[in-house]
Amino acid sequence: MGMLSRDVLADPVALTRALVDIESVSGNEADIADQVQHALSGTALKVERFGHTIVARTELGRPERVVLAGHLDTVPLNDNWPSRTEGNLLHGCGTSDMKSGTAIALHLAVTEPEPRHDVTYVFYECEEVDSARNGLKILADGRPGLLTDASFALLLEPTHGLVEAGCQGTLRVLARTWGRRAHSARSWLGDNAIHKAAPILQRLLGYEPRTVIIDGCEFREGLNAVRVSGGVAGNVIPDECVVEVNFRFAPDRSEEQAAAHVRDVLAGFELEVVDSAPAALPGLDAPPAREFLAAIGRPPRAKLGWTDVARFAALGIPGLNYGPGDPNLAHKQDEHVEIDKIVEGADVVRRWLTTGP
Amino acid sequence: MGMLSRDVLADPVALTRALVDIESVSGNEADIADQVQHALSGTALKVERFGHTIVARTELGRPERVVLAGHLDTVPLNDNWPSRTEGNLLHGCGTSDMKSGTAIALHLAVTEPEPRHDVTYVFYECEEVDSARNGLKILADGRPGLLTDASFALLLEPTHGLVEAGCQGTLRVLARTWGRRAHSARSWLGDNAIHKAAPILQRLLGYEPRTVIIDGCEFREGLNAVRVSGGVAGNVIPDECVVEVNFRFAPDRSEEQAAAHVRDVLAGFELEVVDSAPAALPGLDAPPAREFLAAIGRPPRAKLGWTDVARFAALGIPGLNYGPGDPNLAHKQDEHVEIDKIVEGADVVRRWLTTGP
Repeated sequence: MGMLSRDVLADPVALTRALVDIESVSGNEADIADQVQHALSGTALKVERFGHTIVARTELGRPERVVLAGHLDTVPLNDNWPSRTEGNLLHGCGTSDMKSGTAIALHLAVTEPEPRHDVTYVFYECEEVDSARNGLKILADGRPGLLTDASFALLLEPTHGLVEAGCQGTLRVLARTWGRRAHSARSWLGDNAIHKAAPILQRLLGYEPRTVIIDGCEFREGLNAVRVSGGVAGNVIPDECVVEVNFRFAPDRSEEQAAAHVRDVLAGFELEVVDSAPAALPGLDAPPAREFLAAIGRPPRAKLGWTDVARFAALGIPGLNYGPGDPNLAHKQDEHVEIDKIVEGADVVRRWLTTGP
Repeated sequence: MGMLSRDVLADPVALTRALVDIESVSGNEADIADQVQHALSGTALKVERFGHTIVARTELGRPERVVLAGHLDTVPLNDNWPSRTEGNLLHGCGTSDMKSGTAIALHLAVTEPEPRHDVTYVFYECEEVDSARNGLKILADGRPGLLTDASFALLLEPTHGLVEAGCQGTLRVLARTWGRRAHSARSWLGDNAIHKAAPILQRLLGYEPRTVIIDGCEFREGLNAVRVSGGVAGNVIPDECVVEVNFRFAPDRSEEQAAAHVRDVLAGFELEVVDSAPAALPGLDAPPAREFLAAIGRPPRAKLGWTDVARFAALGIPGLNYGPGDPNLAHKQDEHVEIDKIVEGADVVRRWLTTGP
């Protein structure tokens, strides 16, 4: 305990470094959650803990409430821990995704007692693993009232200092073909399931994905085979082949419409939906969103990926992604963050939370 | 030692049962080879041993020499050992493939001192595993002279009492496609290797295999994907896909011609030949082959599969497959052989070896 001193909490760069140096690969968030909880316990915020997820709320009676959210976990270390500073770059696992963003939220929670809007800070566990373990999902399922009184959510996932609005949905489908085994020396006695998968790949190869403009944000879709497998042995006609297909879809489609589209494209094949998560519309009309965009001063772009803003959208809370990290460095061995992007991010978010329009 | 008593050796059915009950899964042939060697040591045959492969030759000065060959090993036990007799059926691992055939050869080696042709008996190890360990291949490579003075070979592999002539060749080829990884949310940054495999499967699906008649035997070919694999993760555009293709070809093609044909069919793709074995022509013109067919009294059919007759063919020795086992029961849990087929097989082969045309 106590790594997060008052001095460290007052400096979002030092705080990023300190959070990175508390190892918190998904499933191992106990220590970092303890330290975040301890740092928040000295404030006027109302703090509650669920597993290793911490919720801290101002209770200032403001007419509007916003969420600032960041996850505490990282992907597994990859010989890139602890942190290391090199000029303007802070290197290490979690620097971009997303301890620099989480540090901005924690820094403001501790140092900004009088925001214009009430704020619900959420520091949550297990974002990088199975959806069922996701701390924000568990909170949204179990105690939605702690979130639903907000009219806007800012998720500090890496966007490299830009505003990324909404997010794509994602759907994974298994397309299966069946045949009959036989010795390959007498192949006419069998029925080749791998050959039968040819039209599946052919349709995916010829598929023309849409680009959809929503609220000025360009969402590109994609329908791709991500895995294929089939076969028994080098001398056996295969009786089963599975093509795993991932559809990334724009937020003008619901999950059901996305699944129906994949069923259209792959009509005639046995399909099984194995994973589905909704898209989120950009949600730029909410007043706090407009204020935030004004504070940034640059137009938003579409989030091309899936993030937890979709969980907020599902609760009826419009959300934006904004963080100092570069999303292209997330999960990479050479993950790093630009220090001046952290400073700029903390300034922008504080200005939004304190200065009137 | 000593399980193979004089009484057992005099009865091909009892001998089949005894050989089955000496467990000899490939790699574990020491015991069965010892017992076969011991059984042969009491005869006038010239016996030599190479690993667990036994060669026993008559030296009668006959103008013509024939080979009788059978392998000693079996595929792994599958809760089907030791043997069990049920009416006309002898059940157990190796009953069909091919201890019933090997028993006929060993029975004749011990009980038939005066065949019309000189005979080279070959009892060999490791037929059911990698070609490099095959006892007949090792013998053909290291001491070909022990085989090449024969003008005909009879391989007692299971044919259910029919004569199966020649054999198909077999070729295995990997067809690879390459792409570029990217996050599936931004698939346009990548290049999908699985989609690129569509034309490979499409061409295999549309392929029309030949049927070729050679010496009255109908050889059917087949070109099949036997395995397909590709993919990195559920959210990554795959950068590699591999389709493993097996070509079973008629003996009017050489291995080189077979490979060239596959290159034609899959033109434009990266191909790697990983396994190749030549076909064998029926070879029905050799006088001992004609005599054998006359002894059987039924027309031959093509061997649809690969057998070691191709190794004899490669040494310039025409060969036929003939054995009591049912080839469709080989490698199956319920493997068995019909007892009267063993008796009939031993009679036919003895008649051929002793009675003039």
